[in-house]
Amino acid sequence: MTVLERLIQNLSRLPGLGRKSATRIAYFLLNADDAFNKNLAGQIEGLKSSIRRCRVCGNYTETEICGICSNPSRDHSLICAVEQPQDILTIEATHEYDGIFHVLGGVISPIDGVRPEDLNIQELVRRVGQGDIKEVILATNPTVEGDTTALYLAKLLSSSGVTVTRLATGIPAGGDLEYADRTTLARSLRGRTPLSY
Amino acid sequence: MTVLERLIQNLSRLPGLGRKSATRIAYFLLNADDAFNKNLAGQIEGLKSSIRRCRVCGNYTETEICGICSNPSRDHSLICAVEQPQDILTIEATHEYDGIFHVLGGVISPIDGVRPEDLNIQELVRRVGQGDIKEVILATNPTVEGDTTALYLAKLLSSSGVTVTRLATGIPAGGDLEYADRTTLARSLRGRTPLSY
Repeated sequence: MTVLERLIQNLSRLPGLGRKSATRIAYFLLNADDAFNKNLAGQIEGLKSSIRRCRVCGNYTETEICGICSNPSRDHSLICAVEQPQDILTIEATHEYDGIFHVLGGVISPIDGVRPEDLNIQELVRRVGQGDIKEVILATNPTVEGDTTALYLAKLLSSSGVTVTRLATGIPAGGDLEYADRTTLARSLRGRTPLSY
Repeated sequence: MTVLERLIQNLSRLPGLGRKSATRIAYFLLNADDAFNKNLAGQIEGLKSSIRRCRVCGNYTETEICGICSNPSRDHSLICAVEQPQDILTIEATHEYDGIFHVLGGVISPIDGVRPEDLNIQELVRRVGQGDIKEVILATNPTVEGDTTALYLAKLLSSSGVTVTRLATGIPAGGDLEYADRTTLARSLRGRTPLSY
């Protein structure tokens, strides 16, 4: 196998890249200037050593405590529990949320052998128990595992006195009833909201 | 800007990757094992130094002469002229062609300031003039520039006595007349072929 083929093979292991897009990127790199390739290579190689997990919430960070947890202008009484660090980025992109986060590190999944004690749940309970928290938003994905995990957490936190909420499930904005699946439609019916005018 | 954001920014400069897919890849790399990242980084950094252009056809190769040009079982009387090295890969994937190639390095384009003398055309004329060539297939893209370049080459090679052909333009296999654009349909009419049965 040639150098080029080996690179294409490795690139196509990246998420979202098939053989065709990997080939296109490899040829792009062949024509890119040396500085760009050197820079990109250095970033990839050094990535994991320069990034760690936030000691408070588990988000990826370069410092001991991430930029969100150390931001005094955010609402520290509101915690949004997510499955993975990248979910934080997605929620931040909405500019709708000014609380802080908690990364669970996955979802409870007996099939994959993931038990509650494998997740970052104890730390969430500890944070909630510290007293300053008013609400925990459970933002796990609306899948069987995500729902199970949310229910588990809701039960676990029920005695703590904080409000526990779950992200709304329903028809996506701009969507079409005709193309909504049954479960989504059923949930959006059950979760219908009063229209204020 | 954080290390992660800088990597995402660089990744999204790669062809076919937007900000979302670049982010997904960056998080994948954060979770990948060190060996994979080190390997990929090394391949990207070393790519350009280990790959050169074939002395005969201009294809990318690790040796002085590429695997196609040095393959004695291929038809060396048939040259397919393409715009870029990656076009060779595309044509090879059809398993329909057993001749050799010639990389022009682009197309004649007055708007972009590309003149015939900027392309690898003199070398093609020299190869054809050596006498062993029977046919030159002009496989530039069916764009204005690709067609212009093909016409230019056809005229240039007309006195050499070799057959000069052009890839057929027409409706894509599995396509639909209804969705074919006017130019494509007009060309497929002009280039209609007798049906043998």
